[in-house]
Amino acid sequence: MGEPKSDIVVMKFGGTSVAGAEQIKRAAGRIVAAREAGNRVVAVLSARGKTTDELVSQAQEISDRPDPREMDMLLSTGERISCALCAMAIHDMGHEAISLTGSQAGIVTDSFHTKARIVDVRADRIKEALVEDRIVLVAGFQGVSTDSRDVTTLGRGGSDTTAVALAAALQAGVCEIYTDVSGVFSADPRLVPDARKLPRVSFEEMLEMSASGAGVLQLRSVEYARNHGVRIHCRSSFEDGPGTLVVSEEETMEQPFVTAITHSKAEARVTLTGVRDEPGVAGRIFSALADANVNVDVIIQNEPVGGDQLADLSFTVDRTDLQTAKDTIAALGDVSLKVRADEQIGKVSIIGAGMRSHPGVAAKVFEVLGNERINIEMISTSPIKISCVIAAERVDDAVKSLHETFELGDEAVRPEDPTGPAQRPTVAN
Amino acid sequence: MGEPKSDIVVMKFGGTSVAGAEQIKRAAGRIVAAREAGNRVVAVLSARGKTTDELVSQAQEISDRPDPREMDMLLSTGERISCALCAMAIHDMGHEAISLTGSQAGIVTDSFHTKARIVDVRADRIKEALVEDRIVLVAGFQGVSTDSRDVTTLGRGGSDTTAVALAAALQAGVCEIYTDVSGVFSADPRLVPDARKLPRVSFEEMLEMSASGAGVLQLRSVEYARNHGVRIHCRSSFEDGPGTLVVSEEETMEQPFVTAITHSKAEARVTLTGVRDEPGVAGRIFSALADANVNVDVIIQNEPVGGDQLADLSFTVDRTDLQTAKDTIAALGDVSLKVRADEQIGKVSIIGAGMRSHPGVAAKVFEVLGNERINIEMISTSPIKISCVIAAERVDDAVKSLHETFELGDEAVRPEDPTGPAQRPTVAN
Repeated sequence: MGEPKSDIVVMKFGGTSVAGAEQIKRAAGRIVAAREAGNRVVAVLSARGKTTDELVSQAQEISDRPDPREMDMLLSTGERISCALCAMAIHDMGHEAISLTGSQAGIVTDSFHTKARIVDVRADRIKEALVEDRIVLVAGFQGVSTDSRDVTTLGRGGSDTTAVALAAALQAGVCEIYTDVSGVFSADPRLVPDARKLPRVSFEEMLEMSASGAGVLQLRSVEYARNHGVRIHCRSSFEDGPGTLVVSEEETMEQPFVTAITHSKAEARVTLTGVRDEPGVAGRIFSALADANVNVDVIIQNEPVGGDQLADLSFTVDRTDLQTAKDTIAALGDVSLKVRADEQIGKVSIIGAGMRSHPGVAAKVFEVLGNERINIEMISTSPIKISCVIAAERVDDAVKSLHETFELGDEAVRPEDPTGPAQRPTVAN
Repeated sequence: MGEPKSDIVVMKFGGTSVAGAEQIKRAAGRIVAAREAGNRVVAVLSARGKTTDELVSQAQEISDRPDPREMDMLLSTGERISCALCAMAIHDMGHEAISLTGSQAGIVTDSFHTKARIVDVRADRIKEALVEDRIVLVAGFQGVSTDSRDVTTLGRGGSDTTAVALAAALQAGVCEIYTDVSGVFSADPRLVPDARKLPRVSFEEMLEMSASGAGVLQLRSVEYARNHGVRIHCRSSFEDGPGTLVVSEEETMEQPFVTAITHSKAEARVTLTGVRDEPGVAGRIFSALADANVNVDVIIQNEPVGGDQLADLSFTVDRTDLQTAKDTIAALGDVSLKVRADEQIGKVSIIGAGMRSHPGVAAKVFEVLGNERINIEMISTSPIKISCVIAAERVDDAVKSLHETFELGDEAVRPEDPTGPAQRPTVAN
């Protein structure tokens, strides 16, 4: 890493990393160690373990449709609790720490409650505290709206985004994301025992991985990091040693064909028949789904075959969104539309920046799945990704075969590994 | 009530009044009813039932001596949760509501964390919201410090003080304090079944009652109300009908000899022997106790009798403070001081603004207790109060006898009762 390096480190700890008193003390220990190593430290904390779920259920006891502004006021308390407790632990270790709410930390957002977007980071107060030689703890997942000075929350994965945004604003040398896994793997280690911890992945690969089932980093935070050039280091709260660096493509010295296999088993497919083949029909359907906050993944439309100008349209959604999707389509009131749903749908994705220059990857994927007699129901591709929608029950087989075929396992020690001697990663979970 | 009346009402709900979803909906119902009756409503809420205790124990798991600033950040979340949930409930009833943190509500305090004092109320945002026809919910017990813009908390009884301070700043017609008892009684109804709910008490009487065992209103909030002329109405969250008005003395049309008997059984007496009879010695002892946050109540010093110039000094403290008091005195390092403690001490107090003009009350009190063979160990008086320190086990007898002797029971319907036909109060607890 030859580039000039800021001495500011942003460290983010997720919910499992601050779940109990022991975990908070451990996180405090890591923060203090980073400070004692000569860094100026800003730490972003999530709500403890189940806190957010408990708050949500308190709201549900009161109201079926809680007001979003008040939901944000409610949910934002969880991260504040974590920060206050962690500051206490750091004080006991002999260091000065100060906890800040999202608002105090200068995280300015728009006014879309429960899914606000960061529009500005006014980190003056953080900078002041760093000058005063304090460790700064920032409540993740929240901000304050410019126009109404209300507490907002950033939605799912918001604390990762808080950390990356602060790292960008403070020009931090690195944004370390601590979770209960030790890095980004070539496949889910619970499924593929010899999955390899990747020393580096590019932002583009990480985006595809986050979008296709790798839970370690939230898509949105990776986008923010790419747009602002923030180096992310995914690490484990519970073990030492390096994790995975997410960096710009120029920094990943080698581009293997395939970097990782990701998967998801929690999808559902909706098939619409009787879609009128007129301009605007599909647009109307997907606008309605977007308004209902249904995230549509793979889409296929078949050309109409008969003379009735009615087409078929299939798409996949998160299984938890299936009922909303059905309700939304029913609410369109289009009598010719027939809806069919398959809830046992999964997806396997092959990701690698090197695919751009190796057009044979797709053919190989189809061959592998064919040999396994796994039926590919839908396909979607990007320059660095191939996703195949398959039956949920065949996902495990598909991941294993593809991981083996593309030789992604741990035995293949790569030359670009910056961690020195090859380390066998300890698999979390 | 002939005085001009503001249409702003401040309503304060304590922890038991927002403990569960049902209670929050009930509080919301009361707030909406006040709004629909034509008032503009500002409601101050405490943390739910055991929330504050749970947060304190989370802090104790982390640290023996949690940093006060972080303690405030932690504890202030409880009231925010209550406010957000109550706002949701009000929305469901078809009204606009907005929850505000202490900081957003403009409660400006000094920087004494965990026991901050309100120095200013900048209620612009509340006023704006009232103009926009919203119900405003304010998180009690908290504020923001002027100099460091940090979250502060007001200490015990802080939410009552928040409510009274807002009522003063908004020139509210009344500050209604909702608790689990239906008003202020002539004695504890759990002890004296025919204790009478007092329709009105003066600020001065209420101050003496709060200081001597009546738990319904916090001393500090009564002081604030007196200083700013805020009318307080103590009411029950769980039943309808008027409670007790706390108003200036001119408004209490009649001044009976005695208004109420209060008591406490949770006291302890510390007796110091061998106190050198020199100027400054007692001052040093009580300064040290004050620094240790020990609240000393009744004090008696006996003149030295022997030739050794050593005096005796007795004082009472809250039983929970006894150990701290002993430790503090030991830490003074005065070898001649001997400390004795009696943990089974109680106190009975007779309060009434009419005592000023009726000097015979004290004599009557001593006579009653004498007839009951209750030994008076210490006495302290004010113009409107007589407190007798007695054995804890005789407190119940003392309260009953005094209540009966001064004819404070419910059968005596008073002419000044503003509630119309005499109502038999339903006794809470």
